[in-house]
Parts: sequence; C-alpha cells; structure tokens
Amino acid sequence: MWSCEIYYCRMEAVLSIGTHVIPHPRKVETGGEDAFFVGGDGGGVFAIADGVSGWAEKNVNPALFSREVMANSSTFIKDEEASNDPQILLMKAHAATSSIGSATVIIAMLEKTGTLKIASVGDCGLKVIRKGQVMFSTYPQEHYFDCPYQISSEAIGQTYQDALVCTVNLMEGDMIVSGSDGFFDNIFDQEILAVISESPGIDEAAKALAELARKHSVDVRFDSPYSIEARSRGFDVPWWKKLLGAKLTGGKMDDITVIVAQVKTVAVPDDEGSGVEQEKGGEQVTVAATASAEQNE
Amino acid sequence: MWSCEIYYCRMEAVLSIGTHVIPHPRKVETGGEDAFFVGGDGGGVFAIADGVSGWAEKNVNPALFSREVMANSSTFIKDEEASNDPQILLMKAHAATSSIGSATVIIAMLEKTGTLKIASVGDCGLKVIRKGQVMFSTYPQEHYFDCPYQISSEAIGQTYQDALVCTVNLMEGDMIVSGSDGFFDNIFDQEILAVISESPGIDEAAKALAELARKHSVDVRFDSPYSIEARSRGFDVPWWKKLLGAKLTGGKMDDITVIVAQVKTVAVPDDEGSGVEQEKGGEQVTVAATASAEQNE
Repeated sequence: MWSCEIYYCRMEAVLSIGTHVIPHPRKVETGGEDAFFVGGDGGGVFAIADGVSGWAEKNVNPALFSREVMANSSTFIKDEEASNDPQILLMKAHAATSSIGSATVIIAMLEKTGTLKIASVGDCGLKVIRKGQVMFSTYPQEHYFDCPYQISSEAIGQTYQDALVCTVNLMEGDMIVSGSDGFFDNIFDQEILAVISESPGIDEAAKALAELARKHSVDVRFDSPYSIEARSRGFDVPWWKKLLGAKLTGGKMDDITVIVAQVKTVAVPDDEGSGVEQEKGGEQVTVAATASAEQNE
Repeated sequence: MWSCEIYYCRMEAVLSIGTHVIPHPRKVETGGEDAFFVGGDGGGVFAIADGVSGWAEKNVNPALFSREVMANSSTFIKDEEASNDPQILLMKAHAATSSIGSATVIIAMLEKTGTLKIASVGDCGLKVIRKGQVMFSTYPQEHYFDCPYQISSEAIGQTYQDALVCTVNLMEGDMIVSGSDGFFDNIFDQEILAVISESPGIDEAAKALAELARKHSVDVRFDSPYSIEARSRGFDVPWWKKLLGAKLTGGKMDDITVIVAQVKTVAVPDDEGSGVEQEKGGEQVTVAATASAEQNE
C-alpha cells in the first residue's frame, strides 16, 4: 500500500518473445527450411512456417516457400483485417506467395485483453504453461503418419479454411512455447516444464529448449515422442531385431524452431480518462509497477 | 443441381447430443457423484460436474454439490449474460450453490457461427474429432497428481477466474467427446476414434465409449492412461513386486460420464430477408437438404 500520483490508464496484455533456431545437421549451411516471424504492435504476433522437405526431390528449395509465407505475413500484419485474425493473415500471406513448395504454418496473436488467437495448418505446435503445468496445447493435423496438413503452391494442398482456429484466454505470467515439429517430436512436456522453470528468461529458455531437442534429435537411443508415436502407428524395427530385444527408438533429425513468449501486463495511458488522480494502493498502480520492474530485467 | 423455390435463410450450427453415465461400481445405488446437463436454445450447451469424493470422509454426500451446480447451470443458461459465456455461467451457477462440497466442472457452448466456447476447472475433458483425428483437446488442471482444480463451497477452492477458457471453431460433421476424468482416465484417444468411427449415431457412440471405459476401469491388467500417468509421476508397485517384473497397471474405478455431440448445420428463416426467390443449385439449398436428411435419421 502506497500513495502516488497516476494518470488514468488501462492494462494491456503484451508478449515478451524469445526465439531460437537450430537447422537440421545436414542443412546448417543453408539455414534449414523453417522460417518464423515476430511482429505486430507491441510484439503481440508470432508465426512459424516449416517448409516441407520433400520438394527437394523435385529440385525445389523447400525453404523458399516457408520464408516467403513468413515474409508475406510480416507485410500483411499491417493490414487492418489481417492484424486481428490469424486465419485471415494466413489466407492473405498464402495467396501472395508465388514460390513453389508447401509448408506447415502456425500463427498466434495476443489481443490486448489477453486472448491468444491461433490458426494452425499441420504439425507446428503451441502450448501454454500456467503455474508449472501445461494448460493448453494444439494438436497436429495430418493426412497420415509424417504427412502433415500443409499450405501449398499446388491446388492439392490445404488452405486457411482447413486451419485449426482456436483461442485461449491468457493471464499475466503465462508462458507460451511454440515450435516446429522438429521441436515437439524431440522433447516431452515434462522436459519443457523443467527447462522453463530453470531458465532465467525467455531468450535463455528458447535456447535451452532448442538445444535439448537438438541433443535428443541426434540420439539414436532416446525414446522420443516421435518414436513412441511411430510405434503406436505400427512402425517398428524388423522382426529379427525385435527378437533380439530391439525396438524403434531415436530422435528425429529435423530443423528445430522454438519460440518462447511470456504474457506481461503493462499500463498504458487511457485516452478516455483525463487528468491526474490521487490513489492509495489501487490495483492499477500495483500492476503498473510490477510490469515496469519486469520490463527492466 | 436442381431448381426450387426457397425463402431467404441463413445457416446456423447446432449440436446433436448423446449422453451416457455409468456410476462407480460401489455407487450404483446412489447414482454416483457425476452430474451433467444439456440445454440451451437448440441444444447448444452441455456441462459436466464431477463431485470430489473426498467429502464422504466428512459425512458429506459428494453428489449434492455437483448436482446443484448443474441444476443452477440449467437455470442460469436462460440469463442473457450467462447464455453467451461459459465462464459467466460457471460463476453464476457456483455462486448460487449452497450445498457443501466441491467439483470439477466443464461447460461448453456452441455459437450459431460454429465457435465452441469452453470453460473448465479441473480434469473433466473435451476433445474435438475432425476427419477421423483428434484436432483439439483440453488439458486437465491439478494441484498435484489426482488432486484436480475444483470449485468448492470453501474459500480455499478455485473459482471461475481459475478456469481454462478457450474456443475452437467447428465445422459441420465435427464430433465432440466430453467426459469426467473417470472416462478419460480409462480410454485412449485411438480407442475413442475407433468407437466413434464404428458407431451408427451419437447415442450409440456415447454408450459404447462409456462401456469401454467401464470395462477398462475394472480391469487390473489394463495399462490405462491413469496408470501410465501415475508411473510417470513416480508412483509404482513396491520394490519387491518390481523385482518380480510387476508394474503399476489397471484402470481407475470411478463414475464415468460421456457426452458425444455432433455439429450440424441447419437453415433457419432469415428475418432480414423477405419474399421468395428462384434459385438453381445454390449452396444454401444443398446444405439445408443435407441437414434435414441427417435430422431424420
């Protein structure tokens, strides 16, 4: 409880965002085929596109499509309609893309009220962590194992109309962990929670998460989420290896993109209010002070 | 393509809902401690409350609280504010409940536009199935293993403010499977998908799902989602049993409530339109005919 002068203000939710990318071990020189963008007023928007690598067999660089979709997203986020609706942003960014290829895409936008809007085609993922537990997660969409829904330069692909479109109401302190399938295929929820709880900040968390997933991805003995899923779909080692006690294990080598975002609340001047008010221990003052301290970390 | 006369109309999403409840084997006479309600204009709302059984140790019937919360929900769904917002409905239903006890609760509402709004406190669950795959799922919230978030008659419990609040945009044909933890603790996603695909209708699906979960719940050899989760949290059989190759397995005996809902689209007269129009093969006509056929099943 203290006393101070404040202007009329309102509280807005914003995101602090950290990112980390580790390309596939054999794609380090080209930077891999994942792409992402972070933007929007106040950093409230992020997106990941994962170029489908099968295009390399047709002598198409799979990175061109995903990078162009992300570049277009960063352009159209200034469009009024698209800036409020991740599905519309996906539609416009896709329509404006002229590269050949296809990609899985996830786009997330935080409204100032704290509502996170998500549009996702394919198997990029997003989880929300509150008070040390996963309280929300997207699900991958796929045609069959290892063949995700994807937006494409070809008519046979999916569009914004096939997207998973959902929202989740967030609170100050909530952590968002989003990534390409190369991330979520190589790390378990419990590991994500542990890394998040041990990391001093979002940049460190993104880096540590990407590095742990990378370590697992090249470990042939690690029983990864990908291996467990593969076995549950009936994939396995040959029968003669099974007789020797072997089972399908190992990480999945892939490009790894991780975005870690934390929801913060900031006080902004309220145009509708006017003048200065003397207030004691009001909630507005308290929250504003907290937000300010966190921003100075 | 055909020609017919139609009135101006608009398409609205509605739910067809099937339910099935199987009480805990030792609570058959009293009907168990789960409660649910289905209602709202056009059947667009459903809710489940699972009374926390620990209250029996204090000589409190755990069913009273969950049943009263559901009864109050069915009253307040007529309230204008609550009828559009599951979190507000939860707040009002909880505030009006005078019984002693506590419960986990999930409330879901389908808007006419196809947006499903969800508020959940604890470990009741809801999954959406589209084209044979789970495309959305809630996550349980808990204080620690087997102690879920719960709204309560006591101040120590959770409130509507602690709810997971989310939405997901649905399409015609999407299936919703919702249940108490006694359902999801005893059945795997792949089993849910198989039962849904084999069932001729929502009533049969709800019954078959509840019966499969019940069968697993009393099977001490079934390696249930509950047992797998327990082991992953460090619970296990005593060391001397482990030496003999034993591991913690078995279903979890509990009340089992299942709600299965399917999204349908119906044509309703549009008050803003007027008169009759001659139209050839318009999408409105086609969809209306489909919806009508499905409702007559």
